[in-house]
Amino acid sequence: MLTMVEMNVRIPLDFDREEAEHLKAREKERFRELQRAGKWRHIWRVVGHYANVSIFDVESSTELHDILTGLPLYPFMEMKVTPLCRHPSSLHDDDR
Amino acid sequence: MLTMVEMNVRIPLDFDREEAEHLKAREKERFRELQRAGKWRHIWRVVGHYANVSIFDVESSTELHDILTGLPLYPFMEMKVTPLCRHPSSLHDDDR
Amino acid sequence: MLTMVEMNVRIPLDFDREEAEHLKAREKERFRELQRAGKWRHIWRVVGHYANVSIFDVESSTELHDILTGLPLYPFMEMKVTPLCRHPSSLHDDDR
Amino acid sequence: MLTMVEMNVRIPLDFDREEAEHLKAREKERFRELQRAGKWRHIWRVVGHYANVSIFDVESSTELHDILTGLPLYPFMEMKVTPLCRHPSSLHDDDR
Amino acid sequence: MLTMVEMNVRIPLDFDREEAEHLKAREKERFRELQRAGKWRHIWRVVGHYANVSIFDVESSTELHDILTGLPLYPFMEMKVTPLCRHPSSLHDDDR
Amino acid sequence: MLTMVEMNVRIPLDFDREEAEHLKAREKERFRELQRAGKWRHIWRVVGHYANVSIFDVESSTELHDILTGLPLYPFMEMKVTPLCRHPSSLHDDDR
Amino acid sequence: MLTMVEMNVRIPLDFDREEAEHLKAREKERFRELQRAGKWRHIWRVVGHYANVSIFDVESSTELHDILTGLPLYPFMEMKVTPLCRHPSSLHDDDR
Amino acid sequence: MLTMVEMNVRIPLDFDREEAEHLKAREKERFRELQRAGKWRHIWRVVGHYANVSIFDVESSTELHDILTGLPLYPFMEMKVTPLCRHPSSLHDDDR
Amino acid sequence: MLTMVEMNVRIPLDFDREEAEHLKAREKERFRELQRAGKWRHIWRVVGHYANVSIFDVESSTELHDILTGLPLYPFMEMKVTPLCRHPSSLHDDDR
Amino acid sequence: MLTMVEMNVRIPLDFDREEAEHLKAREKERFRELQRAGKWRHIWRVVGHYANVSIFDVESSTELHDILTGLPLYPFMEMKVTPLCRHPSSLHDDDR
Repeated sequence: MLTMVEMNVRIPLDFDREEAEHLKAREKERFRELQRAGKWRHIWRVVGHYANVSIFDVESSTELHDILTGLPLYPFMEMKVTPLCRHPSSLHDDDR
Repeated sequence: MLTMVEMNVRIPLDFDREEAEHLKAREKERFRELQRAGKWRHIWRVVGHYANVSIFDVESSTELHDILTGLPLYPFMEMKVTPLCRHPSSLHDDDR
Repeated sequence: MLTMVEMNVRIPLDFDREEAEHLKAREKERFRELQRAGKWRHIWRVVGHYANVSIFDVESSTELHDILTGLPLYPFMEMKVTPLCRHPSSLHDDDR
Repeated sequence: MLTMVEMNVRIPLDFDREEAEHLKAREKERFRELQRAGKWRHIWRVVGHYANVSIFDVESSTELHDILTGLPLYPFMEMKVTPLCRHPSSLHDDDR
Repeated sequence: MLTMVEMNVRIPLDFDREEAEHLKAREKERFRELQRAGKWRHIWRVVGHYANVSIFDVESSTELHDILTGLPLYPFMEMKVTPLCRHPSSLHDDDR
Repeated sequence: MLTMVEMNVRIPLDFDREEAEHLKAREKERFRELQRAGKWRHIWRVVGHYANVSIFDVESSTELHDILTGLPLYPFMEMKVTPLCRHPSSLHDDDR
Repeated sequence: MLTMVEMNVRIPLDFDREEAEHLKAREKERFRELQRAGKWRHIWRVVGHYANVSIFDVESSTELHDILTGLPLYPFMEMKVTPLCRHPSSLHDDDR
Repeated sequence: MLTMVEMNVRIPLDFDREEAEHLKAREKERFRELQRAGKWRHIWRVVGHYANVSIFDVESSTELHDILTGLPLYPFMEMKVTPLCRHPSSLHDDDR
Repeated sequence: MLTMVEMNVRIPLDFDREEAEHLKAREKERFRELQRAGKWRHIWRVVGHYANVSIFDVESSTELHDILTGLPLYPFMEMKVTPLCRHPSSLHDDDR
Repeated sequence: MLTMVEMNVRIPLDFDREEAEHLKAREKERFRELQRAGKWRHIWRVVGHYANVSIFDVESSTELHDILTGLPLYPFMEMKVTPLCRHPSSLHDDDR
């Protein structure tokens, strides 16, 4: 199940810096775990923003929901979720 | 130079069908050419829409402009262009 | 895979009436087929609009895309697609 | 009287956690009560958001208003209310 | 069941004038009928626009849907439908 | 001078409750005064929101401005002001 | 009764030029008439647009509605109507 | 150089009242100064809002920028700036 | 007087091609004339769109209005006009 | 790689003034450095706003991202990033 998720992170200016660094480190760790598992298929940074464009490939909507809402930085994120499917003309195996 | 391009195609209801099929065939051909050249890196369909999310990897803004405005279906497309860059935590080689 | 699809139908004022009636009849037939198959799980009319709110339960994004873009009235529809998942507190079996 | 209500919950980051858990527990209880009474007919989670899509079937606008504004999490919710009616082509009894 | 309906009429510039006058006359007749029946409780013009703000008081969502979509000028209208209920502080009998 | 005013009230979560109750009581009192004077002609609640749709009938724009900005809950309100006029087809005396 | 009206004119590209010139001439004549009568108090062009910002000073909402909808170019205009009132700090007599 | 400036003032609910009164007094003083100098040509209140519509007539963009950002209430204002020019049909000298 | 003008060109699909080419040639000629005169200070293409971002430096709002509305492609353009002024920290002479 | 960046600065009303002045001084210094290096090609103030329109000319998206997110005032900025390319009709060397 392919899905594009656009994540926008807004950490309040007065949020504790150490706590923020800690959350970012945990986020990175969780991201890598999901990346290795082949579930977080792609990620790109959006130029000039603390934001990313990501492609997920998971088993079900419930799995995606649990992954997203379980991210360490989730409480600071705005998300836009767009369901995708493989394009019939694509020649690339990694377009999933 | 990584860029996300979201393309939305709207062919008018009364547009000549044969001409439309001809343009779609040429679009597909051009797409495959750019895909093989490694410039049109990824493409996905947006569920329920005649639309796609694409990732381009080109040399310059001018090259991207020329590619996009030269697409056979360009006159029927609305485009949203978002500059991306590689994410430092990514482990995948194809995140470009 | 649960998905909400909001469909808004706009048939141009000068579109041939007989052709429109024909398409609506085919739409209704297709709708019933998908309803009986358990794929088009729910449908409601939006008061005052030629529009509906629907819940689909299908196997994959690709299946949903093919169903939606294959609807006889698809060329006249604007669609909003929202991925859903079962709510953990729900007691009803038909919340899918 | 069928109505779609889209609820989006935003609890401030610095809100007391215990109090929040208490409100969520009361919300769940109230939800089940209304579900059993057949008034909160359907509920689905929106993937990636602390939000739901719900279908209510109540006697009057006033009853709906009192139910919604009386929810324990109401002060943290943004709501979109859309009046629906049964679709004439529906074959399902639970499309209400 | 109290509902506010905001109707915005857009008749295309090249629409047949006689036909338009005929539809407007039928619209007015239908409006008066519904007004006398107590269903179309209030109507006001929006200054500078071919538009009105109306309050309906009907038995059900289905009745409202049938009334609105059956209006002679319906194909030219954009509608915004907002469910209302009586305000507890109101002293006026006609606030319905 | 007929005007529709849509009022949306947002009292911050951490605002003193007693003070809020006091302001609401004063708002109700002021509302009734203006209702009896025939200036606040109609009011309805918007289902699911702490909001109302109101119709004012006053002598001048300045009088309306003074009434609105003088409401006890004014500092917590968002307002949308729409000038109306009597509809020529209306048969009702209270459509003012 | 002071009101700001922002008028945006869109004459279709294929509209008959002579007829357009005729309507513009009549619009100008009507504008001058209303200007001399002190009803169309001010007018300015919006740079780069076929649009104006105008201030009207009329007796009633109904008078304003009749003036605006009676303008020769009205069928080609989009309007935004904003009720104003005299500012208490103004020293100028022409701020009406 | 004629420019319309729409100013919307939002002073936070918890801002010190005395300080606010002081700033408003200074704002009024500065406004009158600029009014007398013929630079702040017109001002009107927007009904129901702590907002105004103003017309400025200054020498340059830089002068306008300095005037606006130097207003005592500037930190609390949202501004919309629209360049205008004299309308060729205007008969009034004060349309500047 | 520095102004940013964002121009978006939309020539209808069925517009006569030869006429379009003729207008584009005249547009280019006029553009060069204004560029040489130092009035059209800068121009850039917006990637993927038939659109440009331009900086004008003219004597007055009226001059700008006349230049813009006199462009051969003006009837096909949507424009956004933003007044600018020189930035005090700029070291470049061409930032005008 | 030419890019337009529109920066809007919002420093909270209660932010420490001295700290703000310090950040602004560092921002100015950094701006001049990038200006001299030819990377921050142009800058203009937006009249009436604490905002600017800037043109960057850098080697890559990653370089631009690092420059923007490294600005001392970045945490207070909203940014809009638009990829540009040189216009073929431009005669000016500084249109880059």
